[in-house]
Amino acid sequence: VKPLSVFAAEHPNLVISAADIDAMQGAVEKPGRFRAAFLSTQSSVDLALQAPIAVPVPADAGGGYTHEQHKKNYQLMYNAGVLYQITENPKYAERVRDMLLAYADLYPTLPLHPKRRPGAKNPGKLFWQSLNEAVWLVYTIQAYDLIRPSLTDAEAEKIERGALRPVVKFLSVESPETFNKVHNHGTWLTAGVGMAGYVLDEPEWVEQALLDLDKSGRGGFLRQLSTLFSPDGYYNEGPYYQRYALMPFVTFAKAIDNNEPERGIFEYRDSIVMKAIDTTIQLSYNGLFFPINDAIKSKGIDTSELVLGVATAYGESGNAQLLEIAAQQDRILLTGDGLKVAQDLDAGKQQPYQFKSMAFRDGKDGNEGALVVMRQQLDGDQALIFKPAAQGMGHGHFDKLSWQFYDRGAEIVTDYGAARFLNVESKNGGRYLPENETWAKQTVAHNTVVVDETSHFDNDLKSANRHHPKLQFFHADNQVKISAANIDSAYPGVTLTRTMALVNSPGDGSTFAIDLFDVKSEKPHQLDLPVHYNGQLVDTSFDLRGFTDSISALGKGNGYQHLWLKARSKPDSGLTQITWLNDNGRFYTQSSLVDGNTEILFTELGANDPHFNLRAEKSFIARRNKVREHTFVSVLEPHGEYNPAQEFTLEAESKVRELDHKKIGDIELVAIESNAGATQLLAFNRNPVASASTESSFEYRGINYAFSGRAKLFLITN
Amino acid sequence: VKPLSVFAAEHPNLVISAADIDAMQGAVEKPGRFRAAFLSTQSSVDLALQAPIAVPVPADAGGGYTHEQHKKNYQLMYNAGVLYQITENPKYAERVRDMLLAYADLYPTLPLHPKRRPGAKNPGKLFWQSLNEAVWLVYTIQAYDLIRPSLTDAEAEKIERGALRPVVKFLSVESPETFNKVHNHGTWLTAGVGMAGYVLDEPEWVEQALLDLDKSGRGGFLRQLSTLFSPDGYYNEGPYYQRYALMPFVTFAKAIDNNEPERGIFEYRDSIVMKAIDTTIQLSYNGLFFPINDAIKSKGIDTSELVLGVATAYGESGNAQLLEIAAQQDRILLTGDGLKVAQDLDAGKQQPYQFKSMAFRDGKDGNEGALVVMRQQLDGDQALIFKPAAQGMGHGHFDKLSWQFYDRGAEIVTDYGAARFLNVESKNGGRYLPENETWAKQTVAHNTVVVDETSHFDNDLKSANRHHPKLQFFHADNQVKISAANIDSAYPGVTLTRTMALVNSPGDGSTFAIDLFDVKSEKPHQLDLPVHYNGQLVDTSFDLRGFTDSISALGKGNGYQHLWLKARSKPDSGLTQITWLNDNGRFYTQSSLVDGNTEILFTELGANDPHFNLRAEKSFIARRNKVREHTFVSVLEPHGEYNPAQEFTLEAESKVRELDHKKIGDIELVAIESNAGATQLLAFNRNPVASASTESSFEYRGINYAFSGRAKLFLITN
Ligand SMILES: [Zn+2]
Ligand SMILES: [Zn+2]
Repeated sequence: VKPLSVFAAEHPNLVISAADIDAMQGAVEKPGRFRAAFLSTQSSVDLALQAPIAVPVPADAGGGYTHEQHKKNYQLMYNAGVLYQITENPKYAERVRDMLLAYADLYPTLPLHPKRRPGAKNPGKLFWQSLNEAVWLVYTIQAYDLIRPSLTDAEAEKIERGALRPVVKFLSVESPETFNKVHNHGTWLTAGVGMAGYVLDEPEWVEQALLDLDKSGRGGFLRQLSTLFSPDGYYNEGPYYQRYALMPFVTFAKAIDNNEPERGIFEYRDSIVMKAIDTTIQLSYNGLFFPINDAIKSKGIDTSELVLGVATAYGESGNAQLLEIAAQQDRILLTGDGLKVAQDLDAGKQQPYQFKSMAFRDGKDGNEGALVVMRQQLDGDQALIFKPAAQGMGHGHFDKLSWQFYDRGAEIVTDYGAARFLNVESKNGGRYLPENETWAKQTVAHNTVVVDETSHFDNDLKSANRHHPKLQFFHADNQVKISAANIDSAYPGVTLTRTMALVNSPGDGSTFAIDLFDVKSEKPHQLDLPVHYNGQLVDTSFDLRGFTDSISALGKGNGYQHLWLKARSKPDSGLTQITWLNDNGRFYTQSSLVDGNTEILFTELGANDPHFNLRAEKSFIARRNKVREHTFVSVLEPHGEYNPAQEFTLEAESKVRELDHKKIGDIELVAIESNAGATQLLAFNRNPVASASTESSFEYRGINYAFSGRAKLFLITN
Repeated sequence: VKPLSVFAAEHPNLVISAADIDAMQGAVEKPGRFRAAFLSTQSSVDLALQAPIAVPVPADAGGGYTHEQHKKNYQLMYNAGVLYQITENPKYAERVRDMLLAYADLYPTLPLHPKRRPGAKNPGKLFWQSLNEAVWLVYTIQAYDLIRPSLTDAEAEKIERGALRPVVKFLSVESPETFNKVHNHGTWLTAGVGMAGYVLDEPEWVEQALLDLDKSGRGGFLRQLSTLFSPDGYYNEGPYYQRYALMPFVTFAKAIDNNEPERGIFEYRDSIVMKAIDTTIQLSYNGLFFPINDAIKSKGIDTSELVLGVATAYGESGNAQLLEIAAQQDRILLTGDGLKVAQDLDAGKQQPYQFKSMAFRDGKDGNEGALVVMRQQLDGDQALIFKPAAQGMGHGHFDKLSWQFYDRGAEIVTDYGAARFLNVESKNGGRYLPENETWAKQTVAHNTVVVDETSHFDNDLKSANRHHPKLQFFHADNQVKISAANIDSAYPGVTLTRTMALVNSPGDGSTFAIDLFDVKSEKPHQLDLPVHYNGQLVDTSFDLRGFTDSISALGKGNGYQHLWLKARSKPDSGLTQITWLNDNGRFYTQSSLVDGNTEILFTELGANDPHFNLRAEKSFIARRNKVREHTFVSVLEPHGEYNPAQEFTLEAESKVRELDHKKIGDIELVAIESNAGATQLLAFNRNPVASASTESSFEYRGINYAFSGRAKLFLITN
């Protein structure tokens, strides 16, 4: 038997340290959130201990019995390990020990998993893919660390030799491609192997985990930290995958910090781990993540990965704003950081969390576009998401320059998210549905321009991953948040430029989301700009002419085959308005300037969907045919209140009665004239190099105006 | 000037008495809910007093300026009157006085309202119809009563002679049809006139209000109390209109009780006023009224009429369960009863309100069918509404024997309610939409059998009002709630009989809603049984075969013209299952026995709706063609949980693997066999005269069973 390690002189010492245990033992004796969490975990573990041990020979893929049983096992081992440390009751350690001994018997006998994907480079043994095997190791090595003091050296040796070392070997030197891969899966492998290195006194494993198997730094955890997040902590698959990716980063970082604080892992790359945690929170509205890319919409800040992230970040920073997020999560971890959160929540120390308006730069160097978030608090929280971000790899959508709008707790202008019923067997086994490819990823499923009924990059992922939009500017002050971006690679010979602004007028409390979408191309094209809206259509400024007895699919492919065409109109040139009523009780009017040659198509999702896989969502599409140059000018205006419970309806009609759009050199103007006779005039300087000190002036309707910096909202009264 | 009256020796003495005022004056000095309500009212009235008095010459219909201004006036006068009594600040009384003097100048000059309906018998002068004029009087006479002590006799005489007496005269002797009508509008007129009688010392008015203009008792308030509610306090237009009707009943009853307690008005007809209030609460789920007939779905127990009802009932009964409802309403009235509610809520005296399973009999004698409510609390509140009720006059729907189901806070099997956007001008002026007639009232819009694509009573309201279903039985115990009803007048030569049960098995915690719909006719017909479901379809036991490129309206009229036919299948004979997922995260499976000749049609609402007036709701319709006799046997089963936030899905599949239905004389059996091998066997005795002591026995699959009373659920394990 080898001597105990230098690192592992003390157990536990991964996410939970021995010093944490002392504090946790004291805390469970006193009333409060931590004790409540402890009692809850104890009662569920005690129940689980009544079942016999089951360590079955692997047979099933995800969702099947053996897959789920091995998942349950590592979760139970981890929780029982924690309870053993807190209570010192040997029954918890014994269950972990017996399970680990069973794994030590089983693992050496295992071939590759029978349900592995044919030809795939990432098979597992306990699970169909090595990712799950690595997750098993991350939990199990912590469980082992927690109960190591209870084991005889002979037991420890058997477990290490039969299970832990073989799993480490399998996931590292025997899985070099995945281990060295700069990808979220690689993070799980390096985290598991590195943590095992600390516990089993194998510094070499730690070095390999941090720096690639050959310790070159070309792969490994540090490289992943440097590459997978942008300098703003944005993960380019979007927040849904970001919160998932967070788990091994935070877990391993915490273990590194406990074992080798001299590495300063939390300060690494300008505190990228802390930024990644905070950015995940920032990319949410009303507790749910912005559903960009392959996101399931009900995922939000209460997800277990972010519970760990917030606790760890609070342990590191003591930032009291994080406590407010922890309070919303309403889940306390049985760790040292969880204890700090619990005690400080008990003491009422939380502060309001500040959601920011910010362009979260994309790409490892921050120069591959951005996900832009504009927020204001005016009679309820508003958020406008503008997405000139990079593709985001395999889970990315062809949605360059798309946007979404949120108001008063609700989605107003929406993104479909992923087409998937997670784990519902009857829906394609719970995996992504075919409609995720044929609808959800397609450009027309988004609020951005579609050229000639084809999707961006012609649906070619490789091409999409090679290109990205360019963020031209972002600016935020109290009245005006504004950003512009362009891309010339989404369609050959076509440049798409979009400017979006979220403005509010302190004079009358009105708010507008302003959208200028400019298309320039060499050849004439058909341009479609959809707005996917959430609510019931209540008014249009033109005759709606809905089809009555039958409806047909709008197109043949690229998502168009899924849209029922419910009505089509060609409004007269000038101002055109469409109003809908959201379930939040507020009206929303999209006002646009049209040229008399623009059709408005009203659609509902659900055509060519024989198995009813799609939700019946609604949109209207502005279609301009055979143009080389066109600018879509639109303004979204929240207004009024529909309150049938109290039997009143206020301001069901838009206040906008005229729109005007002008370019004067670098200066661009959008004027919104209201029924009350007042005009909101947004002026901005489109020059990318404009700074806070840039002075601009212009004449509008015979009057001279001037402003400093990027933009200004003028209120003109008659 | 006449001497002050016998009745009105003391002011105020309508809903609020002088004794109440003493208590209220004390209460506003102390912290608590009552003071908070007082301060809130005071601040809004103080704001309103900053505007000048406006008593415009009537010109507009509902929603227009003069209509809304006169409404605002009576509300302000009432609130200012209350504040005057509480604060004794003369500014409040002065505003009421000045407004009343303006009305005294205006009213004698008024002709009938210019916007009255041509030829209608209920015109107003201040408003387009006398109903609103009566509401004005109900509020205004209270305001006058509250500020009477501040007036000189000359002022009082001018107000009474110029405004109050002419309004009373106009609403009574000059509107005899409406005044004497046994109808909700009549209640407002009699309440206003009767209350004016108390304040102006005109006992004759009180007598006429109570007993008809000729004091015969053929009309009047007492007759309305005897006729408009069933013995169970059910108002036959349904709860949405019941809460509206409640207002004048409760207001006038309280005024009668304060002035002439010897009438025992609250004990009248076995305490019908109290029953009517309680039944309104009972006919709600999760705070919202059951949306039968022309109901707007967001109306619920926090409606102002029910705030008055609950406060009054609490003042009368002291029933602490009502306090829980008052707490949910979260609105305190500035009345004596409101004070009692506020103080007892402050003292934490509320008790859980008990929602009951009950057949609320319909019709003045309780023999015109019933609205049946079955409830159970099992892992969340469930409610099954079964509607063998009478038509419910002009706002009634052709929905005989329809049902609805609620679970875990959500509508699962739904009723469309009314097609209306209340007060939204662009939607037919905020009135009922044309689709209220063409869709919402039609039989196919409900979960009940449609014969030959025509609606009940062939959409003839007069015929519908003359007939009603017969309630055969209702029974409720812990495991089984069951009811049956039939009707042979909805279609000529056709008898519809439905039995519905809500059962739960204490063995495995499962619950089922069981539906047996039996149709017998002289000639062969096409029978359609729709289920309007709320959620996303996730599974069918048969091939769905949805239409892909185009869809058409299912039919030509009677509501069918509004249904898109999205898929049609003819499942093999035996068990057929359809599963959907509600937003509440639970799965619902409808299992039916089909005969191989039954088609299932999947529809979505929205055809022939060129202005997008309808919500895109979903249904499936079991269609059996050319039959004389047919029984639809179905079972609805809530199961599992979809939790993408926590990334798990449980029991997405139905446990039902076989259904069986048998009749043995009066005994009827429904057997539900589950995957686990256990069978839930519901046995009931269909004989209408069966009582608790009736003994029944039967043989099923070779085994003898016996039970007492109406019904029993047996659990058979293998
Ligand atoms: Zn998307
Ligand atoms: Zn209805």
